[in-house]
Amino acid sequence: MAAPVAESSTMYSVSIIGASGYSGAELTRLLLHHPKVDLQELYAYSQAGKRVSDIYPSLSCNKVYKPYNGECESDIYFLALPHGEALQLVPPLLAAGKTVIDLSGDFRLKSRDEHEQFYKQLKSPGSVMTYGMAELFRDEIIRAKAISNPGCFATSIILGVAPLFTCRESEIKVRAINCTSTSGISGAGRSNKTELSFSEMSENMRAYKVGVHQHIPEIMQALGTSATSPSFDFTFTPMIGSLVRGIYSILNVQLEGPADAERIKERYREFYEQAPFVRLRDTMTEVRHVAYTNFCDIHIAHATPGGSLVIVTAIDNLLKGAAGQAVQNMNLMLGLDETTGLSF
Amino acid sequence: MAAPVAESSTMYSVSIIGASGYSGAELTRLLLHHPKVDLQELYAYSQAGKRVSDIYPSLSCNKVYKPYNGECESDIYFLALPHGEALQLVPPLLAAGKTVIDLSGDFRLKSRDEHEQFYKQLKSPGSVMTYGMAELFRDEIIRAKAISNPGCFATSIILGVAPLFTCRESEIKVRAINCTSTSGISGAGRSNKTELSFSEMSENMRAYKVGVHQHIPEIMQALGTSATSPSFDFTFTPMIGSLVRGIYSILNVQLEGPADAERIKERYREFYEQAPFVRLRDTMTEVRHVAYTNFCDIHIAHATPGGSLVIVTAIDNLLKGAAGQAVQNMNLMLGLDETTGLSF
Amino acid sequence: MAAPVAESSTMYSVSIIGASGYSGAELTRLLLHHPKVDLQELYAYSQAGKRVSDIYPSLSCNKVYKPYNGECESDIYFLALPHGEALQLVPPLLAAGKTVIDLSGDFRLKSRDEHEQFYKQLKSPGSVMTYGMAELFRDEIIRAKAISNPGCFATSIILGVAPLFTCRESEIKVRAINCTSTSGISGAGRSNKTELSFSEMSENMRAYKVGVHQHIPEIMQALGTSATSPSFDFTFTPMIGSLVRGIYSILNVQLEGPADAERIKERYREFYEQAPFVRLRDTMTEVRHVAYTNFCDIHIAHATPGGSLVIVTAIDNLLKGAAGQAVQNMNLMLGLDETTGLSF
Amino acid sequence: MAAPVAESSTMYSVSIIGASGYSGAELTRLLLHHPKVDLQELYAYSQAGKRVSDIYPSLSCNKVYKPYNGECESDIYFLALPHGEALQLVPPLLAAGKTVIDLSGDFRLKSRDEHEQFYKQLKSPGSVMTYGMAELFRDEIIRAKAISNPGCFATSIILGVAPLFTCRESEIKVRAINCTSTSGISGAGRSNKTELSFSEMSENMRAYKVGVHQHIPEIMQALGTSATSPSFDFTFTPMIGSLVRGIYSILNVQLEGPADAERIKERYREFYEQAPFVRLRDTMTEVRHVAYTNFCDIHIAHATPGGSLVIVTAIDNLLKGAAGQAVQNMNLMLGLDETTGLSF
Repeated sequence: MAAPVAESSTMYSVSIIGASGYSGAELTRLLLHHPKVDLQELYAYSQAGKRVSDIYPSLSCNKVYKPYNGECESDIYFLALPHGEALQLVPPLLAAGKTVIDLSGDFRLKSRDEHEQFYKQLKSPGSVMTYGMAELFRDEIIRAKAISNPGCFATSIILGVAPLFTCRESEIKVRAINCTSTSGISGAGRSNKTELSFSEMSENMRAYKVGVHQHIPEIMQALGTSATSPSFDFTFTPMIGSLVRGIYSILNVQLEGPADAERIKERYREFYEQAPFVRLRDTMTEVRHVAYTNFCDIHIAHATPGGSLVIVTAIDNLLKGAAGQAVQNMNLMLGLDETTGLSF
Repeated sequence: MAAPVAESSTMYSVSIIGASGYSGAELTRLLLHHPKVDLQELYAYSQAGKRVSDIYPSLSCNKVYKPYNGECESDIYFLALPHGEALQLVPPLLAAGKTVIDLSGDFRLKSRDEHEQFYKQLKSPGSVMTYGMAELFRDEIIRAKAISNPGCFATSIILGVAPLFTCRESEIKVRAINCTSTSGISGAGRSNKTELSFSEMSENMRAYKVGVHQHIPEIMQALGTSATSPSFDFTFTPMIGSLVRGIYSILNVQLEGPADAERIKERYREFYEQAPFVRLRDTMTEVRHVAYTNFCDIHIAHATPGGSLVIVTAIDNLLKGAAGQAVQNMNLMLGLDETTGLSF
Repeated sequence: MAAPVAESSTMYSVSIIGASGYSGAELTRLLLHHPKVDLQELYAYSQAGKRVSDIYPSLSCNKVYKPYNGECESDIYFLALPHGEALQLVPPLLAAGKTVIDLSGDFRLKSRDEHEQFYKQLKSPGSVMTYGMAELFRDEIIRAKAISNPGCFATSIILGVAPLFTCRESEIKVRAINCTSTSGISGAGRSNKTELSFSEMSENMRAYKVGVHQHIPEIMQALGTSATSPSFDFTFTPMIGSLVRGIYSILNVQLEGPADAERIKERYREFYEQAPFVRLRDTMTEVRHVAYTNFCDIHIAHATPGGSLVIVTAIDNLLKGAAGQAVQNMNLMLGLDETTGLSF
Repeated sequence: MAAPVAESSTMYSVSIIGASGYSGAELTRLLLHHPKVDLQELYAYSQAGKRVSDIYPSLSCNKVYKPYNGECESDIYFLALPHGEALQLVPPLLAAGKTVIDLSGDFRLKSRDEHEQFYKQLKSPGSVMTYGMAELFRDEIIRAKAISNPGCFATSIILGVAPLFTCRESEIKVRAINCTSTSGISGAGRSNKTELSFSEMSENMRAYKVGVHQHIPEIMQALGTSATSPSFDFTFTPMIGSLVRGIYSILNVQLEGPADAERIKERYREFYEQAPFVRLRDTMTEVRHVAYTNFCDIHIAHATPGGSLVIVTAIDNLLKGAAGQAVQNMNLMLGLDETTGLSF
């Protein structure tokens, strides 16, 4: 692939490795309708030999899944694999000059120790990519050849608090954050676990991995600190509820000084001025406001003189939390408008 | 066990074989609170060694599941096993003089051919029990030692049309029945199938086994005919929808002559006069009217001079469609009031 | 508006009257992203003065609803009003030479008697438009200036059986049809009725208007007969279930002669050869296969030598059952590709 | 009514004022099956003249709702009215010597200022009753004639943290609590609001009244402090999700010193030793574990040397959060076993 230029006639060839999970299917849907790419191969071990339309009839796509065996004919590769599987596949793709966007957690953390602690997996030295959150790292992404796409919970949390951490003046200073985030069950992947069956999860809620979820170090790293030696207290409680899509995060922030709602809204407006997919909302946001979109909605819901701040964010976990954000990153890397193929 | 008498002080010991599935758990709940029985053993292979409260915390029961190895210390045995597994276990229990109520399909059909065709399982000769639908066969049940508990779909369909088949006068005669029944997903059991996951079934509906469901011969047999040589046209389309509990059946009946709503309602009232769990409703019934109850609601929704009749029925698949009906049968066999332990 | 030609650069101006209901919102979404139209005014009495994004934040649209007062600046008008309200509004629009697509039932029926019987509303003489079901009446639609868009249930039923009624040879002849259709609750509109609240409808199902639903005469008319003097027995049981979007129809058809699955599938393939939005499926269809698409999926699920046939269809009630089909009709009237703006 | 004694043959007459809402219906269900009471009158303005079984067919109860006009023939009165309506009705009942249990917020707060601030309603002086949370105030309840039944959110939060506030030794000291609680939609009552319709709430979540919910002063009062002058930082974010029943609370507690999981569990075990409806769970609790029960499940999910503590609680909002807790209070006032009529 030549250096990405904004010539409107250029078409890029794209393939997906790990195409048959929910994130892979959502990527398939987005890339099939993207005006600047040509979707080539869909790799998936477990569904190899089946048509996309057999597993996802709504996609109306006759391509056949096949196992990945090292081919690299496409310009761009998306990897949507279980954690740990991308570690081996990415280096040869980069060596062959390919553009790579990895949706797993394999290349997100700079700290090997934190990676091994939170993912329970060994990590090779040096395996870090550019963290693909355009609202924070747009310039790096534009110049990158390899992107590690953020986690879904992490996206909903980082976008909700990032403006508080980047104030030039010292007046807004975070002392502690408690997050409670509810994910749609699709976040657990296309699963055959009894505890994710309809009969167990309808009309139910369940917290899990309290304080030990693997998105914790990713969030801390993006906010300029670390899980091992944090500059503020941080507690994260992930939950699943009886919904398929969406992440709804309640971010309880304790500031050092008083929390002034207007000052903070002003700060957020400034920070997200150039971000087409962040919507600062004056009224309460809800999951259905963002479902099937690439938006992250943010609402400053409460602020007290005592410095207590409640921020509510909502995203679609499969779009802004996975496939949508990945395509947003691709657009930036290709020099396209950030929203190409993402307005629907 | 002595011959059942209505002495209020007698307590019967009961055990459940196959106690860890949804029907088994519902039986556990009912029998724990039943005033005339003492729940003894809970047998379950796959969960052996675990406490009931580990799998079903709502039951608050500290009993430990154990594998069944032929013990027969209890007076009464309920079997809630996958189809095919009761065939071997029941004969020794009966030989030991136990009262047996089997919730599977193993002993429902008189015709070996139909059993083998619809269950895809060989069936031993002579393996038929009293069919435990009290509203049709109360007297036989009272005298029985072994009951085959009806299927959930079958219950919702048979109760909905039985009064049409038992008119002494010939004026009501059925030419054809088309049934469309939607079951809650708990009807598929405690399952780890991807296609029953919340992510696949929320906001979804799916028909299956159209025209070949194993409850078809059971329904025909209860209505006095057979699936192989039926006395009227019969089509059955089972579905699952995005609900956990309940069966909702739309019964399209074509009569030979005109369908007179008042005559038919009169016939139903007469037929179900002594049935404490059948409610003939003047307005439309709904699943939530019967969920968590042992009622079968029946509403005559439409009747035309052309002989077209639409009957709507609703039950809770785990209660009237399984565990509740099983306890109702036990009550009759023990000489107790039919509703004992079933009013909640 | 000039006579529609396929010139790719032409843009048509479009307005929606009744834009704030669910069908109106779905139309808004489709037309905002349609490459050949320019969405101008959104008329809505009850929400007048509010922004679209206040009511439907997911649409990210800053237009303001306003009351309709007879303006007719646009080329094309969609009406998505409660039944009865379009009767007065349409004639002036047609007189002004506008292209009109009405989503209500006001102009669907040729028979005034049937309209008055089923809609409980008086109907002016002559108020019939071209029935906008492209799969049956494509040529008439292309030439029409005014389209009456089909009902949602009607769409799912007519498409499911139409090929049986149009066989030149007499070998497939319908004697009776029993339909049971479950609609998503959005079909009842943006409602404040207690009986449609989440607390009443979650995990519930409810039939209603059995045998008297207003789509019955529409279905009969499209199939070449009438509700008053039908050429075959027809019974229709509509239901709502615990899902927001979708219609799932079980069509029990009784043929005069034997039902041969292969012959019938062949007939359907032939009939729908040119229909981009009908998908004949070899395996069972489900609501989630068509949700958020304009497809109608059809599966021949069962066919017997006795002439019994079970056909299962699925559509998204707000798309193929309302707004999507309306845009499909607009595309045809404008000489555009039928699928323009409808692939997502 | 004579002074309550534990004589098993005494039957108490009971009536419900405000019987047709969800809490009233749940009370009806409980009291119909309670072995020591005789349910007499069901008062309800809006449904006056209708049968219970018309509104709640699952209850199978033929009593007729009637408007309340000051009668006081029963021994015990439950009031389940919208906030503000009990203020006038209670004093005459107490003057007539009746036992009263009020489920509204009218008599919960000692501080008139806080009542008026959070309920936006004037409050008469002296209008406080015994706060009916048996796990904290059992002795006062036993001696009381009038009980103010706790709020649903308040119950799930107070029970989750109360043991931390009652340590004799000073080693456990709370600095701050952030609560995020999700309620089933039945908590909003039997409602006709569009924003609570199935179409708006399925697959959705929504926070509301962040930091201003009327249960805040009730929680602070029960924990021995006040909303106006709190002894620790407190933030509460209520939410509704796509479930009908249940409250799921994530309680983020910041202690002054380190949080030692074992010490804290020990403290909770001690505190709830005599509480039959509190279950301390070693594994994560879920809504379905407590739905349709009167249990409050508590799980200490996370504790750090830095003093951060995450406690997860689950209740059924209509039972332990309303009608069940009310009957529990009645049992104590009548000298009955606390669990009478509440084991199912």
